[in-house]
Parts: sequence; structure tokens; C-alpha cells
Amino acid sequence: MKDVVFPQIDRLMADLDGLAGLVDSSRPGWSRVAMTEVDTHSRYWVADRMRAEGLEVRVDGIGNVIGTLRGRGNHRKAIVVGSHTDTVDGGGRYDGIVGVVGALEVVRMIRESGIVLEHDLRVVDFYNEEANRFELSCLGSRAMAGALTSKHLATQDDHGRTLGATLEAAGWDPQLAGTRWADDEVLGFLELHIEQGPILERQGLPLGVVTSICGISRFRAMFTGQRDHAGTTPMTSRHDAGCAAAGVVLAVEEIATSAESAVGTVGSVTFTPEATSVVTESALLTAEFRSPDDAWFTLAREQIAEATAKHAEKRGLEHSVQWLPWERPTAMDDHVSSVISSSVGQLGHPAAHLYSGAGHDGVQMAKLGPVGMIFIPSAGGRSHCPEEFTDPAQIAVGVHALAQSVVNLDQESTR
Amino acid sequence: MKDVVFPQIDRLMADLDGLAGLVDSSRPGWSRVAMTEVDTHSRYWVADRMRAEGLEVRVDGIGNVIGTLRGRGNHRKAIVVGSHTDTVDGGGRYDGIVGVVGALEVVRMIRESGIVLEHDLRVVDFYNEEANRFELSCLGSRAMAGALTSKHLATQDDHGRTLGATLEAAGWDPQLAGTRWADDEVLGFLELHIEQGPILERQGLPLGVVTSICGISRFRAMFTGQRDHAGTTPMTSRHDAGCAAAGVVLAVEEIATSAESAVGTVGSVTFTPEATSVVTESALLTAEFRSPDDAWFTLAREQIAEATAKHAEKRGLEHSVQWLPWERPTAMDDHVSSVISSSVGQLGHPAAHLYSGAGHDGVQMAKLGPVGMIFIPSAGGRSHCPEEFTDPAQIAVGVHALAQSVVNLDQESTR
Repeated sequence: MKDVVFPQIDRLMADLDGLAGLVDSSRPGWSRVAMTEVDTHSRYWVADRMRAEGLEVRVDGIGNVIGTLRGRGNHRKAIVVGSHTDTVDGGGRYDGIVGVVGALEVVRMIRESGIVLEHDLRVVDFYNEEANRFELSCLGSRAMAGALTSKHLATQDDHGRTLGATLEAAGWDPQLAGTRWADDEVLGFLELHIEQGPILERQGLPLGVVTSICGISRFRAMFTGQRDHAGTTPMTSRHDAGCAAAGVVLAVEEIATSAESAVGTVGSVTFTPEATSVVTESALLTAEFRSPDDAWFTLAREQIAEATAKHAEKRGLEHSVQWLPWERPTAMDDHVSSVISSSVGQLGHPAAHLYSGAGHDGVQMAKLGPVGMIFIPSAGGRSHCPEEFTDPAQIAVGVHALAQSVVNLDQESTR
Repeated sequence: MKDVVFPQIDRLMADLDGLAGLVDSSRPGWSRVAMTEVDTHSRYWVADRMRAEGLEVRVDGIGNVIGTLRGRGNHRKAIVVGSHTDTVDGGGRYDGIVGVVGALEVVRMIRESGIVLEHDLRVVDFYNEEANRFELSCLGSRAMAGALTSKHLATQDDHGRTLGATLEAAGWDPQLAGTRWADDEVLGFLELHIEQGPILERQGLPLGVVTSICGISRFRAMFTGQRDHAGTTPMTSRHDAGCAAAGVVLAVEEIATSAESAVGTVGSVTFTPEATSVVTESALLTAEFRSPDDAWFTLAREQIAEATAKHAEKRGLEHSVQWLPWERPTAMDDHVSSVISSSVGQLGHPAAHLYSGAGHDGVQMAKLGPVGMIFIPSAGGRSHCPEEFTDPAQIAVGVHALAQSVVNLDQESTR
């Protein structure tokens, strides 16, 4: 397979710094939250950068920015690379962004390597990958895959405004005309992303080949006891909903810790009323589990059912657990992953094989074609915070692996 | 000792029902919260009822309504009876109110028994006994005892308005001219109150002689960990502040349950950020302990310090515990309590001796003279809720005991 030249770190970092300057300065960290003016601004900035590299650019009905480098083979199937440039509030400069500016560098590297691809290469900056205020993530890739439903569009925010009306007011087309891709136009989708966790750094490895994107299952647990005077109601006469909720917080921690490769996180615990002078009448807890193991979720749900029942019965409470619609684990494509692995080997790098605890656009793109992902280390495993950092030299190694994988996938598919 | 006639239940209930009609109909239960229009309205209604019984009435600088039945002895010391008519938001019809309408009935019963007291009898409807939006309770009795300080008056509510300015705007006098009582004018303060707990009902006893009003010690515990991605941070790498806070919720429950006569209640637990997709960076918990045992609080504080340290160290968190200014247990006066006990015996009733888990105006009045309290049962131990209930016949037994105690204290003090 033909070798691709090493990326130029200064060009990469100039693009990364350019995006780091397009943030909401009133918010902490580097905040470029989807559905804000600065996010739209940055999308058109990315479109301009694509045009400057000679790509044919279109912005689709929901704001995905797509730049195409024409291949010479006139194939229907295209190779797709990219990621997202929106951030969480108070987020960092690397999550998603590395995959977009890295894809732009791939275009330059391919050209500078004297390579002309057989297939079209589409560079995508997906719209709104992070969870938005409608508690929905991966909006752009979801729409592209035809998985953004009228039910999603009817979801309301805290002010009672629907997602559809919000998109329309921002100038997007909630009918999504021309946004949906056909089922036969993706040869492979490859995404470069920071790990957002500590595993590569701990193992001292520069690259990770992602095996799967983990499943996410969220639930709400509600306990109802009795509002009583906190001074006059003996401990043995209480029906304190708050104590039961606390027990389930610890159960979530214990259940996830005892599993081999799962995590569990409680988002909030809300007592009603919130007064030390009143025994808590009701308590609501929101939590999630993530795991690459589809079967494990059944066990976790049984354990949560046991824990809630135990803590409710101990205190004479009513209880309920409501599991929200869940995202099942998504396996990466074996063939694309083997192309990535051999490309990494060709460049002389060792690599880990690991799953992703974070959700990615690849979950949606897997509905359109084979998907593979490359991870690079996150300093201290930190992400979704201002401290998020990956060394420029590590980014360059990742971009090199991405470019080589694109070229190899293109060439082996036409042999 | 001269017997007092039995109270007339219909008159008692007419007054109780009259107050139950003076509530904020926009709120649940029977809400007559201090510092609202309906509370002021009800205070002047009580003043009118006092005048109708022939009492000399004055409303002092902070809204305490005081009706005096003159004694024939021209003594400086007066016997004081009464309670409060303000309620918690969403409260009931009996907490405090029974002690005020019961005191009015005592005046009628003494007259109908052909008894003229040696000492003045002062009937008091104390201003604002329940905790107000400045997190201060017993405002009226506190002012009367000279314990409402300029620091209290400078406390601000959520809108930045001071307590002093709020009182002034309502037409009261924050300088408290004429409100403070002298240290030598109370022969005894006797309060009839519902138990607000389940003990009398469980023991099948009509009356309780209060031994002490428990101490209250409140604290805030704060944990600070690290904000991390909830999907990509392994359980063993987390610094989850929320899990530690949950551990302390259960510790509060366990510490109080293992003590002989204490209670412990968590008011609220607040996670930051409140998102299932982010590991909780910081968590704040507010809680309180109550006990009649002054020495126990030292032990409880040690146990909380141990529990917070244990849960913080397990997860690599920073932690702090802040104890707020506390109210120590207040013992009831031995002599007044023995007068109550013998009066109850004279009427042929059995009685429990129990402490009060709730705070009362007696804590402040104890600074002015000897205090005793009589409890009557609360149905199901419920209080501070619309379900609060005590049977009229049980109220009548309590009022009978209060009247007999007043007469006996008056007579034995002049023998």
C-alpha cells in the first residue's frame, strides 16, 4: 500500500486554534454549543476552510457541512471522514474538533502524497453531536441516516418549544429535504477522535482501534414516603424517601464497579420538600449505565430492581423505576477495523483495541455503511472540561493513521 | 386544690374553626404563614376574641397579641399561657392554634368555676413561631425575651431584603420598643400543644408532660471531586462527589437510629453538574440532628466527621463539614412540671413524660421565667401537613389540664 506523507502539525493546529477562537466568551472553557449563533458561525467557517482546500461544499437541511474531494473512479460509494465541532457547555478544544480539522489535513496530505483516490472522499462536520437541551444527541448523523423521527422533532424543551420549531427558527429545514443519504453510498465511515478516557495514556499507546461504541441505558427511580415533622417523628416511624434514593446512588456505583467494563453515573437526586425540618416525602433519582456488553444490561436492570425494592421496603415506601429508551452497543465493522489496524501497523505504531464509553456519530452512520474509529490519548483522561488536552504530536500520529486508512480502504476496494 | 370545670367543646371548636377559615386559599392545607396578610388578619381576629372574653389587649411592637385577665393580688409576676397561630405552608389546623384557643377557653372556665386568680393571667398569641423565610423561628417570643438581635434583623431573604426592613414595611417596630419583658414578671409560662409525633397515641395516653425541648444542630457537608466524562472514565478512576454525599445521607440515618432518643434528617442533596453524562464534580448536603441529650451531639459530630472522611477518602475527594449555630436542649422547669403532673393526677388522667422533638416558644420564654408544656396526641403522629388531627375530646382533656395547672400554680404560689 502506498505510504501517505506525515501531517504538518502547524497547519493542523492553526485550524484547531481557529475554532478555539470561535466560542461563547461568556461561558467557561471553550463553549460552542449547538443551536447557538457561535456554532452556526463556526460551521460556515469550516465550510470556508473546506472550499479553500478545493472541496465541493454543501450545507444540508439540518446543518451538516459536507465537503467532497472527487475520486477518479466515478464510484457511487464514497469514503466518509469527519466528526463534529459543537461542544458541551464548558467543554474543551479537542472533542470532535480533532476529527474535523484532522480530516481537512488528510485532504492536503493525500494531495501532497501524489495520490488520487478512486472513490469520492466526503469530509463531514456533523451538526449537534453533543446532547442538546432536548436531551437528544447526534442530530446531524441521525438525520443523515433517516433516524430523526417526527417524534424526535415533537420533543419539547423546558419552554415548551419543539425541536422542529427550534430548527426551523434557526433556518434549518425540519422536513430534512436532501439530508437523508441512500443506503448504498457509504463505502466506509472513519472517525478520528480523542479517547476522552485514561486507557491509552495509562498503557503508553499512541493509538486505539475502537471495537464498539458502548450501549447507554438511563433510568429514573422514584420513591414516595410520608412528609412528617423531622423533630417529632422517631427514626423507626419514618418513611424517608431521601434515604432510599441515597441507597440507590451507592447501588449504581457498586453495580458498575463490580462489572468488568461498565460505568454507572447518577446525574441528580431531588428531595421534596427540600427542608431539614421535614422528613423527605419523595425523592427522584436519574442515572445511567454504559457497557459494550449487550447482555450485561439485563443483569444491571435486575440489580437496580432489587436495590430499589430493598431500600423501599426497609422504609415502607412506594417505589418505581422507569427505564428510558436505550441505545444498544454498536460494534465497529470488522473489515474497516482491520484496514485501520493494518494501516497503523504499516506506519509502525502499536495500538490498543478498546471500546468507546462515549457515544459518537458512528452509531448513526453504522445504519448507512461500515464504520471504524481511531482514538488518540486524552491527557489525564479528562474530557468535557476546559482541561481537555491532547499533545499536537499525538494528534499528528492520529491524523497520519486516519489518512493511511483512507488511502488503504480506497485502494483495496478497487483491486 | 380547687377543681376547674370541664371545657365546653363546642366553644373551643368554634374558635378553632374560625381560625381554620382565615387561611391562604391559594395554598394547600391550612396555610397561614407569618408575614402574610392573612396572618395579620388572624392576629387581629384573636385580639377581638380576647376582648370579647373581657381581657385587656395589646399588640406589641413585633405583633405578639397579649390579653390580660387581671388578678386580685396586684402581684408583679404573671402566669402566662398561649402559643402561636401562624402555620407552615401547607400545614394543619392544630399546631399552635390549640394552645391559643385553649387559653381563651381557660379564661372562660376559670370564670365559670367561680375562681378569681391571685396573679394576672396573660394569654399570648406569639408572632411567627414557625421558621420563616429568613430561616429564623420564634420571632415573637425571641423579641419578648430580648434575644432578637441586630444580627438577626440584618439577615437577608432571597431577594436581599433584611428581616428588619420586612418587619418595618409590615407596620411592626423593629426597634421593639415596649416588646421586651422584664426578667422578673413571669411566674410561669404554660403551653398546651399537640405532640406532633406518635408516642402518646401509641402508648394510649391522653396527656404528656414535657421534660425538655430537644436541641437542634444543623450542618452542611460539601464534597469536591472531579468533573469527568461519564462514559469514558472507568469506575476506578473517578472522583465522584455525589456518591460520597449519598454515603453521608445513609450515615445520618444510621447515626440517629442507633442513638436512644435522637433523630437525624437530610434536607437536600445537590449535585453539580446535574447530568447523567458527567461525573459529579461537587455535592452539597444539608442535614440536622435533634436530641434532648446535650452530650450526644458531641458523639454525633464525631461520627459525621468519620463518615464524611471515610466516603471522601474512598473516592479521593476534598471534603468539609460546616456546623451551623445550634440550639441546645432546653429543660422544662421542675417545679412547673410537677404542678402540671399533680394537676393531671387531680383530674384523674394518666400521663407520659416525654421530650419535644419540635422547637417551641418555650425555649425563648425559659429566658424570662420557669416554663412547662402539656402535650396532647396527634393522630398518626402527623404534623406540618393537612392530615394533622387531634380529636376534639382529646383537645378538651388537654385544655382541662392546662386550666387546672394555671389555677394550682396561682394558688400554691400565694399560700
